[in-house]
Amino acid sequence: MTRERAYFEALALKEHRQLCPDHVPEVYHFDRPMSLIGMRFLEPPHIILRKGLIAGIEYPFLAEHISEYMAKTLFCTSLLYRSTMEHKGAVAEFCGNVELCNHTARVVFSDPYRVSQYNHWTSPYLDRDVEAVREDNYLKIEIAELKSKYYFFLSQALIHGDLHTGSVMVTLDSTQVIDPEFAFYGPMGFDIGAFLGNLILAYFAQDGHANQRNDRKSYKEWILRTLEETWTLFHKIFTALWDQHKGGSGEAYIPEIYNNPEIQQLVQQKFMKDLFHDTLGYGAAKMIRRIAGVAHVEDFESIKDARKRAACEQQALGFAKMLLKERRKFQAMAEVVSAIPNLHV
Amino acid sequence: MTRERAYFEALALKEHRQLCPDHVPEVYHFDRPMSLIGMRFLEPPHIILRKGLIAGIEYPFLAEHISEYMAKTLFCTSLLYRSTMEHKGAVAEFCGNVELCNHTARVVFSDPYRVSQYNHWTSPYLDRDVEAVREDNYLKIEIAELKSKYYFFLSQALIHGDLHTGSVMVTLDSTQVIDPEFAFYGPMGFDIGAFLGNLILAYFAQDGHANQRNDRKSYKEWILRTLEETWTLFHKIFTALWDQHKGGSGEAYIPEIYNNPEIQQLVQQKFMKDLFHDTLGYGAAKMIRRIAGVAHVEDFESIKDARKRAACEQQALGFAKMLLKERRKFQAMAEVVSAIPNLHV
Repeated sequence: MTRERAYFEALALKEHRQLCPDHVPEVYHFDRPMSLIGMRFLEPPHIILRKGLIAGIEYPFLAEHISEYMAKTLFCTSLLYRSTMEHKGAVAEFCGNVELCNHTARVVFSDPYRVSQYNHWTSPYLDRDVEAVREDNYLKIEIAELKSKYYFFLSQALIHGDLHTGSVMVTLDSTQVIDPEFAFYGPMGFDIGAFLGNLILAYFAQDGHANQRNDRKSYKEWILRTLEETWTLFHKIFTALWDQHKGGSGEAYIPEIYNNPEIQQLVQQKFMKDLFHDTLGYGAAKMIRRIAGVAHVEDFESIKDARKRAACEQQALGFAKMLLKERRKFQAMAEVVSAIPNLHV
Repeated sequence: MTRERAYFEALALKEHRQLCPDHVPEVYHFDRPMSLIGMRFLEPPHIILRKGLIAGIEYPFLAEHISEYMAKTLFCTSLLYRSTMEHKGAVAEFCGNVELCNHTARVVFSDPYRVSQYNHWTSPYLDRDVEAVREDNYLKIEIAELKSKYYFFLSQALIHGDLHTGSVMVTLDSTQVIDPEFAFYGPMGFDIGAFLGNLILAYFAQDGHANQRNDRKSYKEWILRTLEETWTLFHKIFTALWDQHKGGSGEAYIPEIYNNPEIQQLVQQKFMKDLFHDTLGYGAAKMIRRIAGVAHVEDFESIKDARKRAACEQQALGFAKMLLKERRKFQAMAEVVSAIPNLHV
């Protein structure tokens, strides 16, 4: 991958930090020829969220913090907030990060659905499951739609581009989002889905980490609560920002046209419903690619017993396939949570 | 508007001519500092199609020619045909034409739906109708969706950007598409809809041009046939190109993934259904803006009697509003044609 990704990482860090200083570390210095970023040292006890989830640590402010980060960065870099004149330069700049977009498109939307030398999985247990992914026409139609939204249609908002639980550092009361090297103007649901999809992966991995001292039952419940709260709070903050700025210069719904409470409510409901379904779709796609594609996650990889790991992955894969194909049937995150199976492996 | 539009016009003419030499005139020379295009003189008896439609002239090859132009230019500049590497440079280049995109977005998707000093209409006859457009919540929700597809999500194909009947020159056996100064990478349905929407406007204007010598009845039938044939032939040529190139390097549906006849048929049906609904939506939007917005069409403007003109426009506006709101209910162009009212004014 091109060294220029450091440039886009620094640019996105700065822009996102302006919008959400509490949850994005400061960049002190960037040197483009050297691809060198000098930024805040996230001091101990900050650890990568994924490791905390594997260790079974509850983060009481996680949902609140990450939803604030997502709502502020996504709303304020979109045409819900900006005029086209502000927007166009920013979008063009991030077009330069196309190589990393291509990479993402390949590993998320293509490789898991075809025979690729880079794919791997917990063999032989998942051989048949991975083959089934490649043979599922309806799954492949849905992934094509998400790919086209991600890739062929640009510019909804400046997204992080890789917002899984390995891109978040946490303590019990601090949440810091790092590593936006894949940042570009793309669909909001790609970020929200990445985070929530990886939370669901963490959930399905818990049975593999359970032991006689800790059955992880209450931790699994905490993950599901966090999943639901993250969307609920995101929805609340995002729509509050929208209400607050609805008389502003945002190009998407011009105040002179969308000028009565009824229509404002209708467009907001429609937008949030579409965003919810995008989120579920991208979340599911992110789950599938971590089981059948090239790059796996430590949540599962750290389960030593391959048979047990495969059982966890099989559940996650089955749920993700259903979610990708049936996402439009869900109206609220509570319904999604209820649909997550809780079969001990 | 910026003088640079000549650059994009010349660029689009050259690219489209490569793909469809029979229906795009040759550019002999372009001088960027002078914004000067030296191109084929479209010799008499070539006239602007719109004038031919007003005069009641039937063009037996129009549907065939224009559908060939649209299918070849749209398919071959999209990711159905191209790899991302070929695509990205072209898309970035046309991003420079953003000023003209902004202009289109304003006059098509915004002005007719708000009070704007530039709007005009056949007053007082249409005062109430134009007000009703501004008060129709569901219409405004639909136009927002089309605007976001047009504008916020870029890059489906290199579209002409202004493909109304004034951008086509014809003789009885020649059809030449000119004036792509608004060209950019945008939704295919915007071009197809522009052409078909303007044909429908021509249809509704016929009663205003009818006289005792010619009641225009058979001409109205020819327009409706041409409308249906244009879509039917476009569909045929476009899907034939797709079938022919489905093993190629097109990024949208990678052959290794979309690798069986059943899924190929499913994705093609879904794509064409979405494109059909986009086409109807953009076609309707183009009709509305020509009646309630800033720039009107000679089809109506040349009807001297304001009361008669208003009656024609009222029918067209009513049909366009229905089409914009209900477009997803239509499955085939024959159904749309059947829904076009035939009440003499």
